[in-house]
Amino acid sequence: MIPTIEDVRAAAKRIEGIAVRTPLVRNDALDAVTGAKVFVKAECLQRGGAFKMRGAVNAIAALAPEVRARGVIAFSSGNHAIAVSTAAKVFGVEATIVMPADAPKIKLETTRSLGAAVVTYDRVKESREEIGARIAAEKGASLIKPFDDPFVVAGQGTCGLEIGEEIAPDIVFVPASGGGLSAGVALALPEARIIAVEPQEHNDIARTLESGVIQRNAPGIRSICDGLLTEQMGEIPFAIARERFEMAVGVSDDAVRRAMKFAFRHLKLALEPSGAASLAALLESGVDVRGKTVAVVASGGNVDAETFTQALAV
Amino acid sequence: MIPTIEDVRAAAKRIEGIAVRTPLVRNDALDAVTGAKVFVKAECLQRGGAFKMRGAVNAIAALAPEVRARGVIAFSSGNHAIAVSTAAKVFGVEATIVMPADAPKIKLETTRSLGAAVVTYDRVKESREEIGARIAAEKGASLIKPFDDPFVVAGQGTCGLEIGEEIAPDIVFVPASGGGLSAGVALALPEARIIAVEPQEHNDIARTLESGVIQRNAPGIRSICDGLLTEQMGEIPFAIARERFEMAVGVSDDAVRRAMKFAFRHLKLALEPSGAASLAALLESGVDVRGKTVAVVASGGNVDAETFTQALAV
Repeated sequence: MIPTIEDVRAAAKRIEGIAVRTPLVRNDALDAVTGAKVFVKAECLQRGGAFKMRGAVNAIAALAPEVRARGVIAFSSGNHAIAVSTAAKVFGVEATIVMPADAPKIKLETTRSLGAAVVTYDRVKESREEIGARIAAEKGASLIKPFDDPFVVAGQGTCGLEIGEEIAPDIVFVPASGGGLSAGVALALPEARIIAVEPQEHNDIARTLESGVIQRNAPGIRSICDGLLTEQMGEIPFAIARERFEMAVGVSDDAVRRAMKFAFRHLKLALEPSGAASLAALLESGVDVRGKTVAVVASGGNVDAETFTQALAV
Repeated sequence: MIPTIEDVRAAAKRIEGIAVRTPLVRNDALDAVTGAKVFVKAECLQRGGAFKMRGAVNAIAALAPEVRARGVIAFSSGNHAIAVSTAAKVFGVEATIVMPADAPKIKLETTRSLGAAVVTYDRVKESREEIGARIAAEKGASLIKPFDDPFVVAGQGTCGLEIGEEIAPDIVFVPASGGGLSAGVALALPEARIIAVEPQEHNDIARTLESGVIQRNAPGIRSICDGLLTEQMGEIPFAIARERFEMAVGVSDDAVRRAMKFAFRHLKLALEPSGAASLAALLESGVDVRGKTVAVVASGGNVDAETFTQALAV
């Protein structure tokens, strides 16, 4: 059930030529301000604008062809929906995305524009799990989970594998919520110190690591990092995190906005809030990185103009 | 005097490990909207935020060590100043940048922060050439020209060489003003159709290609593309352009803003206006690219938050 670095290597073969091998971006200003040798893994340049493509492609590629032909299904209104829709299109199979009827119109439209069938549900009266189960039963479609799946974790891990093929980082800052990306990267970089980054108030991972038991976030806690608001970490990621994560650090919304501005000004990258969280942690969390080789996973760039403009104004 | 592809290959060796080998970014939306296979050469991810680093490093590296040790000098308030300052620092020699006293404060500060000595002059009463000649005579410093120099043209050509090592483009859209980048890229990609892109009203290159004689722009013509407002093309670039450029197309300020917005939304790149001009030409100039392999040189990303925010609002 728990993937290993061998599964990550197998994932790298499956996603080759479909997902993008993203660049490690260096910057003189970033090195100067941190006193470290910093490499930013620009996953905003990934196909679909976020790392999620890696896991989605690996999970769909790993399905038996006759199973895959019956299509895939996902619950998501964010980057996972974009990734599953895009990956399904590449494999020529149908994607059904189950989204709340009151999801932002732009997200419904984006998902439809990628060729997916969007099924909406009433958040109050209906259960997305029941709807998903019904569609899966009718069509025989396979559910692609966003993080608590060994193929998804191994797929996200290819991001770490690519880092390790170019540099040997002492420390890796990686955003964490469900834990697919952070656990996958930890698997792929067994020698590195892994620092998980989460929204300051939404600090389940810090509490999970401290207690040794998966902790939840109280409902209703918000953050600008819309991609990092999962209720709790997945069990597969947790099994890896408890062994491998050094700690989890929290970042404030304002620190994230300042990191988005830094990325715009110096790196010339458009990062979404969740994608800038790890940079915010590097710049402001006080972790001592002087003299170290540091990798920062900038996990995505799907941000609307309004949110981005607000970040540039801080 | 006129560099060849061999000079570009020699430049590639000189700049290796100092300038960045920038990625060719692909995007599903861009392919869909153009009907072409499009590769965006992301020079905004170059060291210093623009392609200028390539030519500056090549020109400084090519100086004899005892000449280089006496320092370098440049006239610029833009990306060439940043590039020469950064390159000089890498080689451990002094850079003197001559800038108008009324240049934007941020540009004076940026150049100083890169370790360069900034000498200001009064645009009305003084001649930058005289000031430069005096400093060159006093210190024995070498003038690094922004485009009309064979080493600078060959250095910028490494951008094209890198494109040609990964793909065989049918068509290349490249911004042109002094002509260093566009001529260098043309040298490096002898099989490709080269389309130079310039601001719509500032159309000296179209007129130069048509007449076969270098044409000037009337003073006072403005454009949002602040990096593409050279009075006239250089003689070395012209000698290459007259043989190799298929045409020059003009782009309006609004087309450039829309291209900046497209790059933000789909490519997740922050482009400066001049850096988005070639993308604007691909998207709006009407050149038939269907079914072709197209390279777009996105030449830089040094843009202030205000200008960027205005582009996102179009």
